[in-house]
Amino acid sequence: MKHVIALDIGSTSTRAALIARDGTVLDHLRRASGHERGAQAVAECVLDFIAELRDRGLRKYGEAARGVGVAVPGAVDEGRGLALFSANLGWRDVPMRSLLSRPLRNLPVALGHDVRSAGLAEARLGAAQDKDRFLFLSLGDGIAGAVVTGGRIESGAHGFGGEFGHLRVRPGGRRCACGAVGCLETVASVPAIAEAWARASGDPTATAVHAARAAAYGAPRATRIWRQAVAAIADAVVAGIGLLDPRTVVVGGELAAVGDILFVPLRAAIAERLTFQAPPEVVPAALRDTASCQGVALLAWDLLAEAQR
Amino acid sequence: MKHVIALDIGSTSTRAALIARDGTVLDHLRRASGHERGAQAVAECVLDFIAELRDRGLRKYGEAARGVGVAVPGAVDEGRGLALFSANLGWRDVPMRSLLSRPLRNLPVALGHDVRSAGLAEARLGAAQDKDRFLFLSLGDGIAGAVVTGGRIESGAHGFGGEFGHLRVRPGGRRCACGAVGCLETVASVPAIAEAWARASGDPTATAVHAARAAAYGAPRATRIWRQAVAAIADAVVAGIGLLDPRTVVVGGELAAVGDILFVPLRAAIAERLTFQAPPEVVPAALRDTASCQGVALLAWDLLAEAQR
Repeated sequence: MKHVIALDIGSTSTRAALIARDGTVLDHLRRASGHERGAQAVAECVLDFIAELRDRGLRKYGEAARGVGVAVPGAVDEGRGLALFSANLGWRDVPMRSLLSRPLRNLPVALGHDVRSAGLAEARLGAAQDKDRFLFLSLGDGIAGAVVTGGRIESGAHGFGGEFGHLRVRPGGRRCACGAVGCLETVASVPAIAEAWARASGDPTATAVHAARAAAYGAPRATRIWRQAVAAIADAVVAGIGLLDPRTVVVGGELAAVGDILFVPLRAAIAERLTFQAPPEVVPAALRDTASCQGVALLAWDLLAEAQR
Repeated sequence: MKHVIALDIGSTSTRAALIARDGTVLDHLRRASGHERGAQAVAECVLDFIAELRDRGLRKYGEAARGVGVAVPGAVDEGRGLALFSANLGWRDVPMRSLLSRPLRNLPVALGHDVRSAGLAEARLGAAQDKDRFLFLSLGDGIAGAVVTGGRIESGAHGFGGEFGHLRVRPGGRRCACGAVGCLETVASVPAIAEAWARASGDPTATAVHAARAAAYGAPRATRIWRQAVAAIADAVVAGIGLLDPRTVVVGGELAAVGDILFVPLRAAIAERLTFQAPPEVVPAALRDTASCQGVALLAWDLLAEAQR
């Protein structure tokens, strides 16, 4: 079976997958990122992981991997293969593609942004197939997104396209890790919701999903926290609608897994905020936690297809 | 001299121009729109205007116009030639291109959005030449804009792309004509600033430009009004930066004519709001009140070029 190796480097763990040309996940692994030791260490760790995955692919499918795709968070210049900036991984201007492709010799390496890659996977394999223009939001430890216009994912001039998490939805609100005040992440990220619910419920092990479920059961303080989070997400989506007028909004990430507990009030909150604008459909992402791997694998397959032309 | 006819239908007046293939304005006129009599009346009025301009072009340049471009406000589907919605002109789903092109027989007609057309003109002839991704804002009686990614102007799925004027920058603020609360237009449109300064100064004939000039002279109440307007514009631009990471922000419209009185504090207010994001350059539009005509003329020339292929 022809396949590529895909990695999704997160701040705590790195996911890896072997992925077929049609985007199917053949195999899937996960391990600690070791990012505390710097970009060079991450690259070495990734190279070890890739070596292991090459063996594994060869053993299981009788073929060597055709290419590699690596997804990273932060600001990414996909075209030049640079990991420009990541607050969580603590790196800046890391030539990730060349760090990896030299030791890998002839294996083509594609670099992608984790959430924009997930958006690409939704576009080609998931909830946004045949959608020419859509917004993708990933609600997790951080909140990021992808803006897709005319079938193209907008990376931005400096690799920062789609930063929904740092839209200022609560002027005068809490300070964000990024330094600004009132960013969407301060109200609606998984840790922000978990922390608010832990404080309100007195249970230090409370999670964002617990808060959502408690809100669904009508617990008043959970309902307040959840409503505030949903309202903030709606504010960010409505800003995106105002500027981009998408046909569809696809919402994924850990928080989207609660399903209707999120989508029913989110759709209502968006509709409430629109006046003359055309309301887009708001749908859950179809792919789960391998979406970034699948997206960056598509980038690797694209590289291979270009090379054959 | 080869030329096309371009019209920019505004809520009070319609501008018209004869425009050469390189975008040069050869001739320029203006008259009342007569929109109070409905879309059919506007179309008839526009047809009369076009007939007059055809004669004028023939007389002055010895050639008949090659095509027609018509720019309208609101929501526009450029591809299908539909004026979908305009609050100011009070129309909905007007097949403007076919209303015009039937009586004009073989003359090709392009329909454009007024501000997105102005953005296109800035991209090809003005301040954003060779910029692959930029935001264009027009600050006038209304506030609208254009989002340009990868050299393409984003019209949106329903013709509403670039609606900067209705970003909610002041939650809990004033109600907007659109029905929402705290839209950018409620704080920073020309009438909103004029009204605030008329109230503060006691001069009912005060204008937004008066407010800007009084602020530049340090008049305290004018300074407050102007600062609030600039802060609101900065908030909207920063939302655009967060989602789209443009290389450049081009600001035009009546308010931009005050120059540094706007641009110096606007650049400072934007810089103040950014944390990890890369600051774009913020520059004045290069084209003036014929920008929409020039943009829609470019669309008409594009149509002609396509027809020749």
